[in-house]
Amino acid sequence: MWCATVEQFEQAKVKLSALRNDPGNEVKLKVYALFKQATQGPCNTAKPGMLDFVNKAKWDAWKSLGSISQEEARQQYCDLIGSLVEAEGPSTTEEAVTSTVSGAAYKTLLVNTEDDITTIKLNRPAKKNAITNEMYNEIIAALEQAAKDDSVITVITGAGDFYCSGNDLTNFQLQHGSVEEMAKRGGELLRKYVRAYIDFPKPLVAVVNGPAVGISVTLLGLFDLVYATERATFHTPFSQLGQSAEGCSSYTFPKMMGTAKASEILLFNKKLTAVKACELGLVTEVFPDSSFQSEVWTRLKTYAKLPRNSLAFSKQLIRSVEKEHLYAVNDAEVECLIGRWMSDECFNAIMSFFQAKAKL
Amino acid sequence: MWCATVEQFEQAKVKLSALRNDPGNEVKLKVYALFKQATQGPCNTAKPGMLDFVNKAKWDAWKSLGSISQEEARQQYCDLIGSLVEAEGPSTTEEAVTSTVSGAAYKTLLVNTEDDITTIKLNRPAKKNAITNEMYNEIIAALEQAAKDDSVITVITGAGDFYCSGNDLTNFQLQHGSVEEMAKRGGELLRKYVRAYIDFPKPLVAVVNGPAVGISVTLLGLFDLVYATERATFHTPFSQLGQSAEGCSSYTFPKMMGTAKASEILLFNKKLTAVKACELGLVTEVFPDSSFQSEVWTRLKTYAKLPRNSLAFSKQLIRSVEKEHLYAVNDAEVECLIGRWMSDECFNAIMSFFQAKAKL
Amino acid sequence: MWCATVEQFEQAKVKLSALRNDPGNEVKLKVYALFKQATQGPCNTAKPGMLDFVNKAKWDAWKSLGSISQEEARQQYCDLIGSLVEAEGPSTTEEAVTSTVSGAAYKTLLVNTEDDITTIKLNRPAKKNAITNEMYNEIIAALEQAAKDDSVITVITGAGDFYCSGNDLTNFQLQHGSVEEMAKRGGELLRKYVRAYIDFPKPLVAVVNGPAVGISVTLLGLFDLVYATERATFHTPFSQLGQSAEGCSSYTFPKMMGTAKASEILLFNKKLTAVKACELGLVTEVFPDSSFQSEVWTRLKTYAKLPRNSLAFSKQLIRSVEKEHLYAVNDAEVECLIGRWMSDECFNAIMSFFQAKAKL
Repeated sequence: MWCATVEQFEQAKVKLSALRNDPGNEVKLKVYALFKQATQGPCNTAKPGMLDFVNKAKWDAWKSLGSISQEEARQQYCDLIGSLVEAEGPSTTEEAVTSTVSGAAYKTLLVNTEDDITTIKLNRPAKKNAITNEMYNEIIAALEQAAKDDSVITVITGAGDFYCSGNDLTNFQLQHGSVEEMAKRGGELLRKYVRAYIDFPKPLVAVVNGPAVGISVTLLGLFDLVYATERATFHTPFSQLGQSAEGCSSYTFPKMMGTAKASEILLFNKKLTAVKACELGLVTEVFPDSSFQSEVWTRLKTYAKLPRNSLAFSKQLIRSVEKEHLYAVNDAEVECLIGRWMSDECFNAIMSFFQAKAKL
Repeated sequence: MWCATVEQFEQAKVKLSALRNDPGNEVKLKVYALFKQATQGPCNTAKPGMLDFVNKAKWDAWKSLGSISQEEARQQYCDLIGSLVEAEGPSTTEEAVTSTVSGAAYKTLLVNTEDDITTIKLNRPAKKNAITNEMYNEIIAALEQAAKDDSVITVITGAGDFYCSGNDLTNFQLQHGSVEEMAKRGGELLRKYVRAYIDFPKPLVAVVNGPAVGISVTLLGLFDLVYATERATFHTPFSQLGQSAEGCSSYTFPKMMGTAKASEILLFNKKLTAVKACELGLVTEVFPDSSFQSEVWTRLKTYAKLPRNSLAFSKQLIRSVEKEHLYAVNDAEVECLIGRWMSDECFNAIMSFFQAKAKL
Repeated sequence: MWCATVEQFEQAKVKLSALRNDPGNEVKLKVYALFKQATQGPCNTAKPGMLDFVNKAKWDAWKSLGSISQEEARQQYCDLIGSLVEAEGPSTTEEAVTSTVSGAAYKTLLVNTEDDITTIKLNRPAKKNAITNEMYNEIIAALEQAAKDDSVITVITGAGDFYCSGNDLTNFQLQHGSVEEMAKRGGELLRKYVRAYIDFPKPLVAVVNGPAVGISVTLLGLFDLVYATERATFHTPFSQLGQSAEGCSSYTFPKMMGTAKASEILLFNKKLTAVKACELGLVTEVFPDSSFQSEVWTRLKTYAKLPRNSLAFSKQLIRSVEKEHLYAVNDAEVECLIGRWMSDECFNAIMSFFQAKAKL
């Protein structure tokens, strides 16, 4: 009945590594379990600790196979991989490579993975990397993908001379529906966007290659490392535009630098140099512009060689003690902003902005 | 039946602006609603967001008028304002102006509002602005008034060369009743005083014009901006006097600067220079003494022109995430101090203080 | 019936002070109450505040004696002390003195009390004061004793040139049982060790006399003062060893310096100089190595003369607002580390460490 030969088993292993699509965690665990059972027999190792999520899941999958024989496991392994290959249909190798490696799927981003580092580069340099609604959605998707891929560290950076000029204010002009509907839709997108950062499970690094404005500044409190060129500046002109703070900055900034410093930035539009931002704890380290890229990437490549689970678990430990709190802060900030977007104060401030721009 | 003419309506508007007393929020909302109904008809705008408190209250008031006609609204408007004018009795314009503008109602403070800034100046320079029980109560009242007035920003500062020398220790000598009763009364006043700062809804700025001692230092953690002259020093000699930390500093100081720095200040009486206090996050910025007043007020006048609701909401966002926690900290600190005030340790330390003073 | 003379009472007082063993808090309160009742009659003072724990307990004990006569109290006092002396058996004065003063009871520590300061000195200089399992247990015991003794301040420091090189990795080699059992035992000891710091009720000072590594660094967030020689360095190479952060540092470090600085230290093994650690709030003050010991001890002796209860209550105020949170953080960190210790990643990293060492 169990007729798969050792050779068929070896071929199945090769086919597995040639799959173009990720079959999903459920299937991968099944594959893992069958492989262990086929090569080592029933599960006989100690149960991993509760927080060792990955190993625990793998152990559970193996254990769940009970005492089926190695031959039966080998057969099931071959069958399972055969069905996965079939489901993919005929292959076009180049396409598959492109979509994983260069991130051609994104219109506003350049995404790639190299040296165990996934880099998400904002790619609207002509608009100083201002974030459109499309771009918000693409960054959310790119972060979800990076969370699952094989990389150890994830980096966000900008193409060109700017890191990011914040929310693209044309987001307010291009929408349909009443002001109320528009504000609610905008609020929902913002809430989801910030949650993608709160929930990100691996070390997240900002490589701030130039000036940063608005939400690209406030979110820095949710990064694990922030490296900045000396040319970078940090500016959050919320009240000037009749708006209010987001990105959990109403919590992370006072926590990091005290209320007396945070208020001047979040309420009174104080613009920070990179050196000042580093003194206040917003930036990990500042580098000369001429050697910025080479120094930062050399360091990150070294960091990405450290034990990956230790890094991820340590990051999650730091985050977990305040995760619920961050969700609540995000909700309160979004709620407040929705109110602001529907107010005359905000409407007038944004109209003035566009009029001033039109005159230039 | 609805006989108020457009001219009577215009006259009512003028009378409204000449009222000497604030008729209170309830009445003002009614006046607002009737005015909108009289000039625009029934409420037809989108409901403001939940956190947009002021606009929500105004919208509710307007909406509550349902579909009464513009004529009826105009008549009710004239009637309402007529009754308010009547209730005030004969006018003495000068008196009214004095009481609002120069704050003559206070014995220990100078309070005035100018350029959208309400300034509360501690005015016992001969006593280095030490805070008597009367002064605690007056500051609480002045903060309540400033919360409701039209100003955008509220400032606390001191008359003369000192900012504030803290709790006036004669508060311990002048009271009647047992030590226990005195300690409880003192505790209640302190709890109420600190809550006035926790609850203050607008940006609150300390203009620290000279040395600060005790509770005038610990409360700085509840301000949004703290500007200090280079002459200022910051000193909290609690344990030296057998007492313990208050003003929520047992929470705000370690949060801002870490326990290793906070303990030397709160437990071991370390006195800080303005520059050191700025490095530790207690002070926003330090200015040369010669240009202190002009630089600070120039800046504050600019800040006060920003959209007022954005400022208030952003401040409230920052505060709201820890408000309940601050109440609990205040309660624990007050409870601890009441215990201290009844202890021999504290009694002996304060007696030594007065004896040392008497010898001078 | 109550026949104890005043002379017998005086003798009992002398015997009390000569007891070799601490009779425990219950008995001491009883002794206190009988003494008060015998000398002053029934309790007639105001009840201490709720947070004034010590005085409250003493007051309760005295009050509980009700209206028994001074003669009866004197008799009971003599009887109680007589029974304590009897229970101790024959005296050997020298031994008693040694065990309290020089801490000869400890194999890995030097513990003594002088000038109201109890000093716990890690005493394995040949091993850079690396902490063995025996030493963890001895430090826990020494902290429990220091919490109860008469000292005002407790100091932890190291013998020789190192402060402490962290967990002795031979702890991983010398244990019996499965990896899982070993990890659980290690986790329990760690949890108890960190709790001893969380619960410590008096000002706790680290006198960092040289390099500090691992848990001796992470625990600094739970000290009230940290004085360091300029020679000191601070290093937490957790992920390098496949492990994760402990000592509540996943909470105290980001709170103190922001996530962007804390992650480079806790995740990416960044080693800090004393000056840098002071800038980040981990260290209170840095001293030249030549004058380190004399400057620090002069200061601590002055601090130890301040009102002891004010110091203890202020420290407890600062701690109490986050005590439950610290317990939860400690539990999560220990759980995570247990998982790490059972992982291949950690096993391989530690094996590499020993192999590298063996080659030297």
